[in-house]
Amino acid sequence: MKFRTEKDTMGEVQVPAEKFWGAQTERSRNNFKIGPVASMPKEIIEGFAFLKKAAAYTNCDLGVLSIEKRDAIAAVCEEILEGKLDDQFPLVIWQTGSGTQSNMNINEVIANRAQVLKGFAIGEGEQFIKANDDVNKSQSSNDTFPTAMHIASYKAVVEVTIPGVERLRDTLQKKAIQFNTVVKIGRTHLMDATPLTLGQELSGYVSQLNHGLKAVKNTLSHLSELALGGTAVGTGLNTPEGYGLKVAQYIAEFTGHPFVTAENKFEALAAHDAIVETHGALKQLAVSLNKIANDIRMLASGPRSGIGEIIIPENEPGSSIMPGKVNPTQCEALTMVCAQVIGNDVAITVGGMQGHYELNVFKPLMAANFLQSAQLLGDACVSFDEHCAQGIEPNYKRIKELVDNSLMLVTALNTKIGYYKSAEIAQTAHKNGTTLKEEAVRLGYVTPEDFDVWVKPEDMV
Amino acid sequence: MKFRTEKDTMGEVQVPAEKFWGAQTERSRNNFKIGPVASMPKEIIEGFAFLKKAAAYTNCDLGVLSIEKRDAIAAVCEEILEGKLDDQFPLVIWQTGSGTQSNMNINEVIANRAQVLKGFAIGEGEQFIKANDDVNKSQSSNDTFPTAMHIASYKAVVEVTIPGVERLRDTLQKKAIQFNTVVKIGRTHLMDATPLTLGQELSGYVSQLNHGLKAVKNTLSHLSELALGGTAVGTGLNTPEGYGLKVAQYIAEFTGHPFVTAENKFEALAAHDAIVETHGALKQLAVSLNKIANDIRMLASGPRSGIGEIIIPENEPGSSIMPGKVNPTQCEALTMVCAQVIGNDVAITVGGMQGHYELNVFKPLMAANFLQSAQLLGDACVSFDEHCAQGIEPNYKRIKELVDNSLMLVTALNTKIGYYKSAEIAQTAHKNGTTLKEEAVRLGYVTPEDFDVWVKPEDMV
Amino acid sequence: MKFRTEKDTMGEVQVPAEKFWGAQTERSRNNFKIGPVASMPKEIIEGFAFLKKAAAYTNCDLGVLSIEKRDAIAAVCEEILEGKLDDQFPLVIWQTGSGTQSNMNINEVIANRAQVLKGFAIGEGEQFIKANDDVNKSQSSNDTFPTAMHIASYKAVVEVTIPGVERLRDTLQKKAIQFNTVVKIGRTHLMDATPLTLGQELSGYVSQLNHGLKAVKNTLSHLSELALGGTAVGTGLNTPEGYGLKVAQYIAEFTGHPFVTAENKFEALAAHDAIVETHGALKQLAVSLNKIANDIRMLASGPRSGIGEIIIPENEPGSSIMPGKVNPTQCEALTMVCAQVIGNDVAITVGGMQGHYELNVFKPLMAANFLQSAQLLGDACVSFDEHCAQGIEPNYKRIKELVDNSLMLVTALNTKIGYYKSAEIAQTAHKNGTTLKEEAVRLGYVTPEDFDVWVKPEDMV
Amino acid sequence: MKFRTEKDTMGEVQVPAEKFWGAQTERSRNNFKIGPVASMPKEIIEGFAFLKKAAAYTNCDLGVLSIEKRDAIAAVCEEILEGKLDDQFPLVIWQTGSGTQSNMNINEVIANRAQVLKGFAIGEGEQFIKANDDVNKSQSSNDTFPTAMHIASYKAVVEVTIPGVERLRDTLQKKAIQFNTVVKIGRTHLMDATPLTLGQELSGYVSQLNHGLKAVKNTLSHLSELALGGTAVGTGLNTPEGYGLKVAQYIAEFTGHPFVTAENKFEALAAHDAIVETHGALKQLAVSLNKIANDIRMLASGPRSGIGEIIIPENEPGSSIMPGKVNPTQCEALTMVCAQVIGNDVAITVGGMQGHYELNVFKPLMAANFLQSAQLLGDACVSFDEHCAQGIEPNYKRIKELVDNSLMLVTALNTKIGYYKSAEIAQTAHKNGTTLKEEAVRLGYVTPEDFDVWVKPEDMV
Repeated sequence: MKFRTEKDTMGEVQVPAEKFWGAQTERSRNNFKIGPVASMPKEIIEGFAFLKKAAAYTNCDLGVLSIEKRDAIAAVCEEILEGKLDDQFPLVIWQTGSGTQSNMNINEVIANRAQVLKGFAIGEGEQFIKANDDVNKSQSSNDTFPTAMHIASYKAVVEVTIPGVERLRDTLQKKAIQFNTVVKIGRTHLMDATPLTLGQELSGYVSQLNHGLKAVKNTLSHLSELALGGTAVGTGLNTPEGYGLKVAQYIAEFTGHPFVTAENKFEALAAHDAIVETHGALKQLAVSLNKIANDIRMLASGPRSGIGEIIIPENEPGSSIMPGKVNPTQCEALTMVCAQVIGNDVAITVGGMQGHYELNVFKPLMAANFLQSAQLLGDACVSFDEHCAQGIEPNYKRIKELVDNSLMLVTALNTKIGYYKSAEIAQTAHKNGTTLKEEAVRLGYVTPEDFDVWVKPEDMV
Repeated sequence: MKFRTEKDTMGEVQVPAEKFWGAQTERSRNNFKIGPVASMPKEIIEGFAFLKKAAAYTNCDLGVLSIEKRDAIAAVCEEILEGKLDDQFPLVIWQTGSGTQSNMNINEVIANRAQVLKGFAIGEGEQFIKANDDVNKSQSSNDTFPTAMHIASYKAVVEVTIPGVERLRDTLQKKAIQFNTVVKIGRTHLMDATPLTLGQELSGYVSQLNHGLKAVKNTLSHLSELALGGTAVGTGLNTPEGYGLKVAQYIAEFTGHPFVTAENKFEALAAHDAIVETHGALKQLAVSLNKIANDIRMLASGPRSGIGEIIIPENEPGSSIMPGKVNPTQCEALTMVCAQVIGNDVAITVGGMQGHYELNVFKPLMAANFLQSAQLLGDACVSFDEHCAQGIEPNYKRIKELVDNSLMLVTALNTKIGYYKSAEIAQTAHKNGTTLKEEAVRLGYVTPEDFDVWVKPEDMV
Repeated sequence: MKFRTEKDTMGEVQVPAEKFWGAQTERSRNNFKIGPVASMPKEIIEGFAFLKKAAAYTNCDLGVLSIEKRDAIAAVCEEILEGKLDDQFPLVIWQTGSGTQSNMNINEVIANRAQVLKGFAIGEGEQFIKANDDVNKSQSSNDTFPTAMHIASYKAVVEVTIPGVERLRDTLQKKAIQFNTVVKIGRTHLMDATPLTLGQELSGYVSQLNHGLKAVKNTLSHLSELALGGTAVGTGLNTPEGYGLKVAQYIAEFTGHPFVTAENKFEALAAHDAIVETHGALKQLAVSLNKIANDIRMLASGPRSGIGEIIIPENEPGSSIMPGKVNPTQCEALTMVCAQVIGNDVAITVGGMQGHYELNVFKPLMAANFLQSAQLLGDACVSFDEHCAQGIEPNYKRIKELVDNSLMLVTALNTKIGYYKSAEIAQTAHKNGTTLKEEAVRLGYVTPEDFDVWVKPEDMV
Repeated sequence: MKFRTEKDTMGEVQVPAEKFWGAQTERSRNNFKIGPVASMPKEIIEGFAFLKKAAAYTNCDLGVLSIEKRDAIAAVCEEILEGKLDDQFPLVIWQTGSGTQSNMNINEVIANRAQVLKGFAIGEGEQFIKANDDVNKSQSSNDTFPTAMHIASYKAVVEVTIPGVERLRDTLQKKAIQFNTVVKIGRTHLMDATPLTLGQELSGYVSQLNHGLKAVKNTLSHLSELALGGTAVGTGLNTPEGYGLKVAQYIAEFTGHPFVTAENKFEALAAHDAIVETHGALKQLAVSLNKIANDIRMLASGPRSGIGEIIIPENEPGSSIMPGKVNPTQCEALTMVCAQVIGNDVAITVGGMQGHYELNVFKPLMAANFLQSAQLLGDACVSFDEHCAQGIEPNYKRIKELVDNSLMLVTALNTKIGYYKSAEIAQTAHKNGTTLKEEAVRLGYVTPEDFDVWVKPEDMV
């Protein structure tokens, strides 16, 4: 590999000749060989591209950057957003906790790429765009990284998570209506209980997801607050008047999302409670989805020795040894995702609680875990919807067989003959392996006619 | 101890003669000897008292319970709320996961106590109020326990947590204003950074708490939903028409909080996402408070070998061996509470995710962890406020000494002479143990006059 | 209430006249009104009693304490261990993170009680035993609290947790042998799979518990290390030569457990990794027990619409509304305990990771969570054993019906006719609702005679 | 892209023509579009390569596979281990929870690649090696995936984690010895305390890591147990006599690690407590490392307004806005890794606790989190060692200044003049801003000569 010499305030560094990054990126590559290369999420890089462009426009509007420089910076930002420079971001999550080196990675790539777009070789001629003085103008890693983090997180939640969950919710809602008169046995404590309809059962899942979606949306206003304009410690040192407000407006315009400048920049650098807050709501969704997926695989269990009340799609052979086996694999993928999100929530909590003074230095960790959760939840809901939920069908025969046979229908007699006599009927039928009606009549508590009128599953839902 | 014989559907049980509880409570005492006795939170018992009274009123209004029975039930509920029957609730958290036995504990106590209030001995005469058929009328453990859980949780958050946090927030807000012109050094990565004011630093904490309070309040509408009216599986079997709506209105009236009937009773029994949701916001507060308390103890550290920029109250001798030592003990208590809340969040998550079919059977666990968090956070904020935050004072001498000496004031020169020359000045001063001004002038980058004009900490905040 | 005046280095304090505690305890009561009173675990107080007595003996042996003082201190320690002074320890968990005030609580109670045992009123006459100079001699809170924590934790694990788990393990082991020829259907992915015996299924649980017990025992050597002798920062300042070794020997003698002096006192004060380590193993047990309890309630589910392969004891009426219902309540209590232990593990982790310099100040939090886990796990295993595991019986009829009917018996044909033809047989039988044999013969892949020889559930286990 | 037609028991699938994978891999690619492609860890694929080769050898030895087939399978396994087929494993973590499809991915790649190695095009000619009947012979996904998981996990811990931690431990041990006479102030509660040496302080870290390494090693025997031989449900159906034992021996031979066959195969499929157990010990290391890294950055804080007692290497410019700033970036990367490991522990716990009946279906989740933790911890320790720990130097001047000035040296007077008078001296000096000696003499408690003899920091360590 060929190298060129780059320089920063600490001295010279050899950098791969054909790469746009500079000295600080290269130092970071060498100083942090932790885990797979280039693990810093792509969404963070994109968030940076939005904000660097917005900063250039704002700096220009406020008279501290020329139009030529603005456009040169913006042009490279566009290339980044189009994915043309994906191989220029080699850094890992596990670097400085402020993400400084990823900020410098962007700054260096923009500066060097701009030089090339002007017709020079990298490093050739006088640098038209300077990484620190131009690209990073009116900025600090301390306010850019959390801004990129909020942009990326907000976008992931709104563009991936919410649509995925809503899609699944809509399918379950449709099924809830469709099966609203399918009377089946209920189960509490995993034990036979009074009946309900399959539609009612599914409506509970819909309600969970609706509440979860509402919970996520409630957190978005905090997440829409941007740190940019706080610079090093939150005071906004070295920014022109009006910068914070305007740069947030540009970011809102470029991303199409309602970002605003953070009401308190000291919080926005030193704490990432907005990430904690929104991820708390993602964790709630994980809790809900785990319950739903678990129920569905139990209801579909069998084919002959399980519950078997619903039928779910058969997507692939289920076993490399047991021929003909089909498994609830979408439920499994989804519950694994739920477990991951629950673990990520703790990682984010542990990172979020340990800010010191003016800066929290767990930023890349928090961003990476958040973005993974947001994507996995959205993707898994779409997958689960497409390959499982849409295909849920009642096993009518099995459902009827189980509900008709249930001892808990006796509950309907409570209000007629009292709890104690009802219990005696159920216990006797259980012991004798008989029906409720047989025992109710034999014990002399109910006439056969009354029994038929009083104990109807379809009236108990 | 003397015993009397009680009976339930399973047979006879010997119960301590002077206790109001009955057979099922006694069975539970004997079957679940796990951890300290009577660990079921008192707030849950109170929640039950509210709901049993509300159910009696509703049943009466809807024609299924006599006025005499209603008043008899309500009278015992009042006694419970007044704390007169505290020794009648011996059960533990670690019982059936639906809390059935605590529901029966209340039912039995109300029934037997009512008999005594009528002038009989316990168990004497025909039972005027029946535990199952009267006290529990139109109810199931499956809808009563989650209702008691929401009543208790909502009350704890609104009556203990929020006021505690707001009180601390108000003090910090006052201090933020008071110290808003006290210029001090900032610190990022624990390292010297550009200055800010002490008031600005505190304003970040205020902003964290404001966002946290907003996050908690956002969750309250879900928590205000009551399961009551769902009975066994959510269908409302054995309830009179209009029961759910009305009983929620009575609970709202009796408690003074805006409770409503849950929009979906199947969710309300099978999942406790509202508990997960609100506790997620409590955990966010814990994250914020941990950061705040940590900062305060670091800023107050010393007295001679730490940071020492603020002075906090000396409340007690700090060491059994080191004479004269004073420690930031309120910070320690608060951060321990934060750790507990973060652990509780995982316990609640693990419980919340494992509902099966029509019922989640981790109810007492979830309730106990929630209530502990809500109380600890509220209490700890009050304690921290009273014994620490209110007494925070700047150590003006130390603050001035540190900020005047700081190398990071060089940042003010960025916009005058560029990032590279500024870095050279700072690095040289660091190496030589000199001042920025000395090196700036010696290197020929800035005149002494310009330096004094350009580098003023008070202009950098 | 009557008060007397006590004094410490900060001045005078009014203390309830009849209580043995002194100024510092009283300050703590007033300064930390967080959560229920007297929440500091009783086991910690007992741990302190052991160590104060051991310190007195050691100080005496090494010539720095008189025999009279030694005996006076030891006599009060005995009273504490006998539970005679339980109402003298009013402090809460949420105090200073070093537990200093609980150490002083003990010191003060011993000093004042000794004075009373000498025939004086509290505070009357010249104090024979001084709280700091005598009771606390050669000690600091910083080494006593972690010592008390290790004594209490070790005892809880060895005296409560391990015997409880072993008892359950023994029962399951007995059942595994007893049911070792009961052939039943296996289930993977909750779906029907190839057969195994009920004994084999239970043997997996036994193996989990055996591995868990081994894991716990592996951690005990770390937990047996005592901090005592490190005093304030680990250097052992103000202790006589040979103190650490000897005091650990006395503690070992008094408790009957193999405690040793910590090999590195700096670790023993500044980090509580031994607590983290052992609790990690307790969490592993929680993971195992959750799986076991879950399986048992699923296997016992029904009575008519579940799996129903095993029968578990009916301990109490299961529902306040559904007559005759019986629930797997011991499974529920146990799984709630597991969730608590998993949450406690995070609280302990968060506390353990945040030590600073020479001291970790999350000691009471860590101790309280550890002791709760250790007790709950032990108690819950005993309860589960007695009220559930011992009564597990196979439902032979149901087991046979399900296994005979299973499509997964086809796996036995893999080695005879290959995976693909076997799959075709199973899929066709599933589709047609027929038996494997019918389809195997009809498709011409197997003769009826061969089928009967090749496909025998009892040969597949 | 060109496609070829592949077939499985469910029918035909179009597969990219040039890829070795077959129908089931392709189904999985299409059915699980969750998160980044090919996220199944490479180490798992390698684990599979070891076990498929070992299974082929064992099957051959036991007479159920020809030598030709054995060698054909082994040859492809070698190619996989050499990394030549890295682009043949496109599946994600979030698939079926048994990892069945990754098992089939390997089976299919081996079968098709073997065909090519024989000189055919993929799918051309009669398939010499069959994916299910040959490659997967005597195996099930249910025993292969956990086997691959244990192989990969064991290797990662022993080859990456332990050496990384040991390397850091060795450096710290060297430094502890080197600085063992550098007397410095101690700090408890972040407050000035009695002195110790820098070497003593570092020795605490060494002790933590030694205990952590021991804890990890204690868990390895459980992790060395392999499920292989259990096949579908643990009974070993369709395996030749002696298979389990022998296949484990081959795996031990091929990997060079002491793997053994699991003593109970039912546990080995249905629970992954060994993963939980070892990861619990990794989490303990994270707790220790977080404490160590935190201390080091606090001790190195400054350069002028922090603690500043040690100097750590300057590796890169620390700020994009503050010239000359250098940050403790290695500490930050390491503490972020610790937070990740702590979060992963919860994900693994949540997965591990939810096994059902004969199978735990959170296998890929557990494997992925485990392997990430193991690698990150090892890598981060090496990075921290190389770029930080090795360069730690005392700031002698600062250390001396702080220790000489400390009020807590007064503790040395406890045994001479008692705790109360000592406290008075310290408090007065604190109040007056004077030295201990001045006040000790002024108050008349100590002569100047005695003071100089009694209060020597170097005698207090």
